[in-house]
Amino acid sequence: METYVVADIGGTQIRAAVFQTGNPNPLIVKKIRTKDKLQSPTERLIGLFKEVWPNDQQVKAIVVAVPGYLDKNEGIVFEAPNVPGWIDLQLRQLLEEQFHVPILLGNDANLAAIGEWRYGVGKGHNNLLYMTISTGIGGGAIVNGRLMEGHRGLAGEFGHVTIIPNGPLCGCGHRGHLEAVAAGPAIARYVTERIALGAKSSLETINNPTAADVSQAAQAGDALAIQAITRAGTFIGHTLADFIHLFNPSIVILGGGVMASGDLILSPIKKALPEYILGHVYLDQVQIVRASLGDNAGLIGALALAEITDFG
Amino acid sequence: METYVVADIGGTQIRAAVFQTGNPNPLIVKKIRTKDKLQSPTERLIGLFKEVWPNDQQVKAIVVAVPGYLDKNEGIVFEAPNVPGWIDLQLRQLLEEQFHVPILLGNDANLAAIGEWRYGVGKGHNNLLYMTISTGIGGGAIVNGRLMEGHRGLAGEFGHVTIIPNGPLCGCGHRGHLEAVAAGPAIARYVTERIALGAKSSLETINNPTAADVSQAAQAGDALAIQAITRAGTFIGHTLADFIHLFNPSIVILGGGVMASGDLILSPIKKALPEYILGHVYLDQVQIVRASLGDNAGLIGALALAEITDFG
Repeated sequence: METYVVADIGGTQIRAAVFQTGNPNPLIVKKIRTKDKLQSPTERLIGLFKEVWPNDQQVKAIVVAVPGYLDKNEGIVFEAPNVPGWIDLQLRQLLEEQFHVPILLGNDANLAAIGEWRYGVGKGHNNLLYMTISTGIGGGAIVNGRLMEGHRGLAGEFGHVTIIPNGPLCGCGHRGHLEAVAAGPAIARYVTERIALGAKSSLETINNPTAADVSQAAQAGDALAIQAITRAGTFIGHTLADFIHLFNPSIVILGGGVMASGDLILSPIKKALPEYILGHVYLDQVQIVRASLGDNAGLIGALALAEITDFG
Repeated sequence: METYVVADIGGTQIRAAVFQTGNPNPLIVKKIRTKDKLQSPTERLIGLFKEVWPNDQQVKAIVVAVPGYLDKNEGIVFEAPNVPGWIDLQLRQLLEEQFHVPILLGNDANLAAIGEWRYGVGKGHNNLLYMTISTGIGGGAIVNGRLMEGHRGLAGEFGHVTIIPNGPLCGCGHRGHLEAVAAGPAIARYVTERIALGAKSSLETINNPTAADVSQAAQAGDALAIQAITRAGTFIGHTLADFIHLFNPSIVILGGGVMASGDLILSPIKKALPEYILGHVYLDQVQIVRASLGDNAGLIGALALAEITDFG
């Protein structure tokens, strides 16, 4: 049985945990804010690792779930847009110098995919797609029973495929990506724009409603809110049809804050799929389900990555 | 050393060959027309296999490259649109009853991907995309050093992703797919439509020019023909950017008749990529190249599939 120290970096908070082989319940979990006036995110991560470090046990490896693009071979974070200063960061080297154990880095959505596959609703599926829909849209795929990392570990950017040519601007700087039309901010923006055009909604009274506000209003029956979520779900379903043509998975797992709207978002996704799919054979044997690991997906995925890594 | 009997089924002709392990040069190749007044394509395939069958050697397996959708586990061809009568065809069972050897079926573009990976320009690449652009658009991916077949063997339908919502009708019945805007017939149709609208072109004198006619005119400097091919290349490049975000390959291999236009099609593809890619890290280590196996890609891919199959 091995012991692993892992972290999941978010734009708002950093969470660290200690796991032992085969057990998705951590020995300890701690979280802190990512941003701080005196410390950089990297300093805060190192400090948090020291706090959770199990001094009575040998640590086999550190695993970090990173919200951005990274080179898994070189251990470099190219860019994590929501983490100040994380551009071309030699994160593996920095952590190795501090802790003297092997360091694994993974994209957070890729790791959540492995987590759902080994410890969640994706168990037993050798061809699996995981998509997380929240502030951004990311993902990960299991192909032939292995994580699809790609040549440099950059695979699985499921939010950055074009849905509407020359459509709304995406956070990445390109136009019409799925993320730009179906992530939380796009849902909120749609409501705001419609209200500005005169649409009636219970959200009229809220200044700059968030996706969570829209979800709440939709659950209370607000027609505009329901329309905004249905629209996002239809875009997601259409895109998933394309992805199913590419990957032919046996399960598609949907996570992230936007999925907290439950059937309000899942129904339009499931309704769009047969409209856009090549043929029923692509849908006959595929489950479309919500993610099962919640906030712990990244941490448990980090454990799972360590478990399937050959440390040689 | 094993001996394999393979076939590549096309809408126009069926080709069969006999290979031995590790050697992409067949012992024998024969071809016949697919369609015939007296015989079904399946009867013709069986007859051709009997003609090339090596009676002095033990045959390890038969492999068939099918231009359509099939369930690799069940051995059923769901649909091969250009092969009369191949709908819900129990092809494996039919061939087993005749030849009493293991029967492998593969999508023809999937097999070409394996062929290029083991015997062509893709050698040594563990993360590879192959796309064939001719009458239709198909493809195949190598992920983590294995063919991505998906749950039922339906993966790799690279031509059936939406490029233009509610765009031109695709052969599959949906709208705006890559195949509908960038395959050979789409290139030809664009020229015909522009000429009908008054555009000047050397192709004006040809009734219903084909993609091959357009390619020839483009090579002779015809501006409209060049424009049609550039347009298709731009769509392909844009789509490949999306695919590179998903798969992070180290090589993209482009085959099929449309690629015979050479730089006229490859240049706009390569030009579109950096315009649509998330960041240079996705392109820094990826080669975009033309396929190397030509007309034999399907047959050699069939050999390659047999070689990587565990017959248990």
